[in-house]
Amino acid sequence: MCIKREIPLGHFQARSQQLPALAPRALSTGLAPKEEPEASVPAAMLPRQLLARPAWLFRCPPGPRGACVPGAAGSWGRPVGPLARRGCCSAPGTPEVPLTRERYPVRRLPFSTVSEQDLAAFERIVPGGVVTDPEALQAPNVDWIRTLRGSSKVLLRPRTSEEVSHILRHCHERNLAVNPQGGNTGMVGGSIPVFDEIILSTARMNKVLSFHSVSGILVCQAGCVLEELSHYVEERDFIMPLDLGAKGSCHIGGNVATNAGGLRFLRYGSLHGTVLGLEVVLADGTILDCLTSLRKDNTGYDLKQLFIGSEGTLGVITAVSILCPPKPRAVNVAFLGCPGFAEVLQTFSTCKGMLGEILSAFEFMDAVCMQLVVRHLHLASPVQESPFYVLIETSGSNAGHDAEKLGSFLEHALGSGLVTDGTMATDQTKVKMLWALRERIAEALSREGYVYKYDLSLPVERLYDIVTDVRARLGPHAKHVVGYGHLGDGNLHLNVTAEAFSPSLLGALEPHVYEWTARQQGSVSAEHGVGFRKRDVLGYSKPPKALQLMQQLKALLDPKGILNPYKTLPSQA
Amino acid sequence: MCIKREIPLGHFQARSQQLPALAPRALSTGLAPKEEPEASVPAAMLPRQLLARPAWLFRCPPGPRGACVPGAAGSWGRPVGPLARRGCCSAPGTPEVPLTRERYPVRRLPFSTVSEQDLAAFERIVPGGVVTDPEALQAPNVDWIRTLRGSSKVLLRPRTSEEVSHILRHCHERNLAVNPQGGNTGMVGGSIPVFDEIILSTARMNKVLSFHSVSGILVCQAGCVLEELSHYVEERDFIMPLDLGAKGSCHIGGNVATNAGGLRFLRYGSLHGTVLGLEVVLADGTILDCLTSLRKDNTGYDLKQLFIGSEGTLGVITAVSILCPPKPRAVNVAFLGCPGFAEVLQTFSTCKGMLGEILSAFEFMDAVCMQLVVRHLHLASPVQESPFYVLIETSGSNAGHDAEKLGSFLEHALGSGLVTDGTMATDQTKVKMLWALRERIAEALSREGYVYKYDLSLPVERLYDIVTDVRARLGPHAKHVVGYGHLGDGNLHLNVTAEAFSPSLLGALEPHVYEWTARQQGSVSAEHGVGFRKRDVLGYSKPPKALQLMQQLKALLDPKGILNPYKTLPSQA
Ligand SMILES: Cc1cc2nc3c(=O)[nH]c(=O)nc-3n(C[C@H](O)[C@H](O)[C@H](O)COP(=O)(O)OP(=O)(O)OC[C@H]3O[C@@H](n4cnc5c(N)ncnc54)[C@H](O)[C@@H]3O)c2cc1C
Ligand SMILES: Cc1cc2nc3c(=O)[nH]c(=O)nc-3n(C[C@H](O)[C@H](O)[C@H](O)COP(=O)(O)OP(=O)(O)OC[C@H]3O[C@@H](n4cnc5c(N)ncnc54)[C@H](O)[C@@H]3O)c2cc1C
Repeated sequence: MCIKREIPLGHFQARSQQLPALAPRALSTGLAPKEEPEASVPAAMLPRQLLARPAWLFRCPPGPRGACVPGAAGSWGRPVGPLARRGCCSAPGTPEVPLTRERYPVRRLPFSTVSEQDLAAFERIVPGGVVTDPEALQAPNVDWIRTLRGSSKVLLRPRTSEEVSHILRHCHERNLAVNPQGGNTGMVGGSIPVFDEIILSTARMNKVLSFHSVSGILVCQAGCVLEELSHYVEERDFIMPLDLGAKGSCHIGGNVATNAGGLRFLRYGSLHGTVLGLEVVLADGTILDCLTSLRKDNTGYDLKQLFIGSEGTLGVITAVSILCPPKPRAVNVAFLGCPGFAEVLQTFSTCKGMLGEILSAFEFMDAVCMQLVVRHLHLASPVQESPFYVLIETSGSNAGHDAEKLGSFLEHALGSGLVTDGTMATDQTKVKMLWALRERIAEALSREGYVYKYDLSLPVERLYDIVTDVRARLGPHAKHVVGYGHLGDGNLHLNVTAEAFSPSLLGALEPHVYEWTARQQGSVSAEHGVGFRKRDVLGYSKPPKALQLMQQLKALLDPKGILNPYKTLPSQA
Repeated sequence: MCIKREIPLGHFQARSQQLPALAPRALSTGLAPKEEPEASVPAAMLPRQLLARPAWLFRCPPGPRGACVPGAAGSWGRPVGPLARRGCCSAPGTPEVPLTRERYPVRRLPFSTVSEQDLAAFERIVPGGVVTDPEALQAPNVDWIRTLRGSSKVLLRPRTSEEVSHILRHCHERNLAVNPQGGNTGMVGGSIPVFDEIILSTARMNKVLSFHSVSGILVCQAGCVLEELSHYVEERDFIMPLDLGAKGSCHIGGNVATNAGGLRFLRYGSLHGTVLGLEVVLADGTILDCLTSLRKDNTGYDLKQLFIGSEGTLGVITAVSILCPPKPRAVNVAFLGCPGFAEVLQTFSTCKGMLGEILSAFEFMDAVCMQLVVRHLHLASPVQESPFYVLIETSGSNAGHDAEKLGSFLEHALGSGLVTDGTMATDQTKVKMLWALRERIAEALSREGYVYKYDLSLPVERLYDIVTDVRARLGPHAKHVVGYGHLGDGNLHLNVTAEAFSPSLLGALEPHVYEWTARQQGSVSAEHGVGFRKRDVLGYSKPPKALQLMQQLKALLDPKGILNPYKTLPSQA
């Protein structure tokens, strides 16, 4: 019951740029001018109430944009689930992913190897939860973007924290390395082994432990899938404070372990603020119970914070207590075309001012992203071809007020030429359709061949400069250089695609991209984390003393280094 | 320019409870019925727009409530600044605060004592910033609530992080204990020495380093006074994400060190979410630079989190980067009288639902709090005497929409008997007046003699039970037992006043209050922290393994234990 008003997907378009700049621009659907007599009335002459909710907000898009009417939902709203992913990536003809240890200069540390006795011990700890079948081990050894592959021979599927504790106690004693794994949707190779680390999967730890219907505090096991939690709390009139394209697969434990940002970060902030408590099993099997469900608790150091974003290197998260915001009564999504990046930026500051507290997402993508989403996933663009697209979401408690705010904003954005074309949705199916265009970019990119992925925090004014720079730098050596991301958070996803991995292309990209980012005081990993892939570039964003303190914390919490080795910490130390 | 509409303070009141329960209640000012013909029209018959902003919202309170008209501002809005406090507490006749080391069973650890050579070294590091005058050292040796007193002989006033670094390097080498001090408004005795620790004051580290007018990211030195920062960012159309009664004195560094909650927590969340970066000087003088100003940065462990709420025991915070929300265009405050605590709770859930995203504070106080504020500070109550009072603040981007939401809510609250009397303000002076009633409770209590302070997180349903319980338990042995606080966050301030400190009264309160709290899975320190006062009660809210990990972190970051000894960590370890 997220959406109260059932308004058909609305489409609108600015008049041609030839109108005299000072005359107030009229609103028009462009493609169906006859249907809207008010379109020819100058905006300034319309009464405010009318302007605030112009007629095009309530009209369906005509002809060529039929793909976004409800009937076409199948091609749009498909969640990115494990099946969706495997379907695309393990298709016949997809080349085998090379072994990480063969492609990268990395040496196995002197951990023990799993013996028959170990397997017997595991079988006693998690009866029926010890996977050694090579076939079944293929997928959990390969990362989501299919560029890294480990060679683990054992995957364990505990159901309880106590089982995790017993497993780790055994591994600690036996000096066996362990790779915690949630939904295996991580982007930096943190979730899969580099050599033969035991994969410790949270897939069967998927129970909701409690939900408080007044405060909205959810306590659950770490292996709950984000989308399932979303459904659970939405039925109770709350929402999860985070949302991401990988929601159909990723686990809440994985989200916390990576300090995932995602699509609601702009509104609900970081997991460092919304996670209220954690239960964590430490490397030696000790269960650390910080699973409080209190909004405030200043009884000493906030230990749980250590584990948020530690990517399985300091402990295994077994349960999460998280604060869920009330479900907004009205959600609106506007999908807009912008003529340039300067206009994207101006649209952002205008909309921050005019939408205020109801703004819940501000995402952007460039023209190439749209082309790839259309080509590979057969989604249809709901707006005219534009250099940039912006997705704006509002979430509020009063549909009328929200529509009025959004209406005024859109009117202003169209009238001032910031936006040239747009469409709006309020009912859930169509909202999902529009979101799919943005959420499924990563999936579309993965169909291109090899993807070089960069996830940068940059001053918002410079956000797109690096895309233009890299595009010029690589020229025809890359298939595509694209930019998209969470503009509202200053977070760019710069992606470069090529037929296959090539060391020379990599050499042209790195360290260039990192140096460029460091010059802007940016972050070389905004939200995806470090994992295996980024561990040697931390120095671009963190001073040596910080890296040293990270090492000291690792040594304190995991003295034998058995938890997710080769990840998150710089390799030279 | 925070307030756009200048509407006089409005007063309203529910009809007598005799009205038949099912008939929609009419709205009435009670005291001036003739002025409002619509008051006799049943609410259900009024058109929605009219209901949403009933006339009483815009009327001034009559006769006896004249104290809250603008002219009476002097007696209301006075900020709690250093002068206000000293004026009240060091008044002639105020008894000398006993030395902490004499009242409590605590032994000095084997730190060095400050020598002439040390003083000479400090003078070289901070020329003109070494205070040894006994007179000048009196105030910084006593805590805000005047129940603890240290005997430090040296206070240092550095201006830069480098100076702090040199001071700590010297102290570390010489094994001298150091007590970081901000505004000295802390409630748990963390900010003042127990013995002769050197006081390291941030008072001269009060520079804004940068402010980004698009993102709202403020970077400043740790000694900036919260209220001054508020003014600074408000002039630039932003607000600080936190606000507290102590704003006129407390430093942002102290706020971060205590992980202060305060009055905006409900809306903008914890400092763990809003603090983006910190610069910290570690015990050995190393400067740890985590002063990024990026909304997202997942390059490894989020080290700054360690220091948020660590109360000066792990490092000295020298600079803070913090995300400021845009200044709301409209702020409304409603001050309401409720007939019982059940109605307070119902008012809260109703207002969460009806005010949604614009709700920015929900505070409550009981009748005794109001009596004390009226008696000691000569503030006037703006509403009829009630068992409970509630202060609701909304902050939004559209004054009309907000007034409509608040109007509907108030109408419902009055109509259903949740609220019996109320007043509302939108202009800044009157908003401040209403806030003063809530913010200055701590000050009023401190005029009562000795105050036993408890700051508890509890399930909101049980929040007031402990007050009733303690009141019954103590009977005439206490002067007053009061309850107030941040109800929206489940945070109760339970305060007990007596003429003077008495071990037997303490014995009746402790461990009873802590045990009661632990039984509710609450926190024995919601926002005030641990300091000296609460260090031996942590076990009520944290398991042994967590306490052990705290000790390990302390040993890692401050192996000699020179930073704020006798604080935050349990004494027995
Ligand atoms: C289509 C798509 C869209 C995405 N969008 C976003 C986005 O918008 N924002 C964003 O931040 N990220 C995004 N991601 C990446 C993001 O990191 C992951 O989707 C998610 O947070 C990881 O969860 P997971 O359960 O899949 O963890 P995994 O991938 O299984 O693991 C990730 C890391 O966490 C560790 N880990 C997992 N579970 C635990 C545990 N219980 N205890 C300790 N360590 C654990 C692993 O060892 C690994 O280091 C996206 C990924 C995809 C595929
Ligand atoms: C009237 C009043 C109202 C209050 N209301 C609230 C409230 O609503 N919410 C709330 O949470 N608290 C409240 N408090 C208490 C609160 O803890 C403090 O007001 C504030 O956060 C402390 O800031 P300060 O600068 O005064 O720190 P101090 O009192 O000087 O120090 C507090 C602690 O932090 C340490 N510290 C200070 N500065 C630094 C630094 N730069 N680096 C490292 N450590 C440092 C000190 O060693 C000490 O342990 C209130 C206090 C008063 C007097």
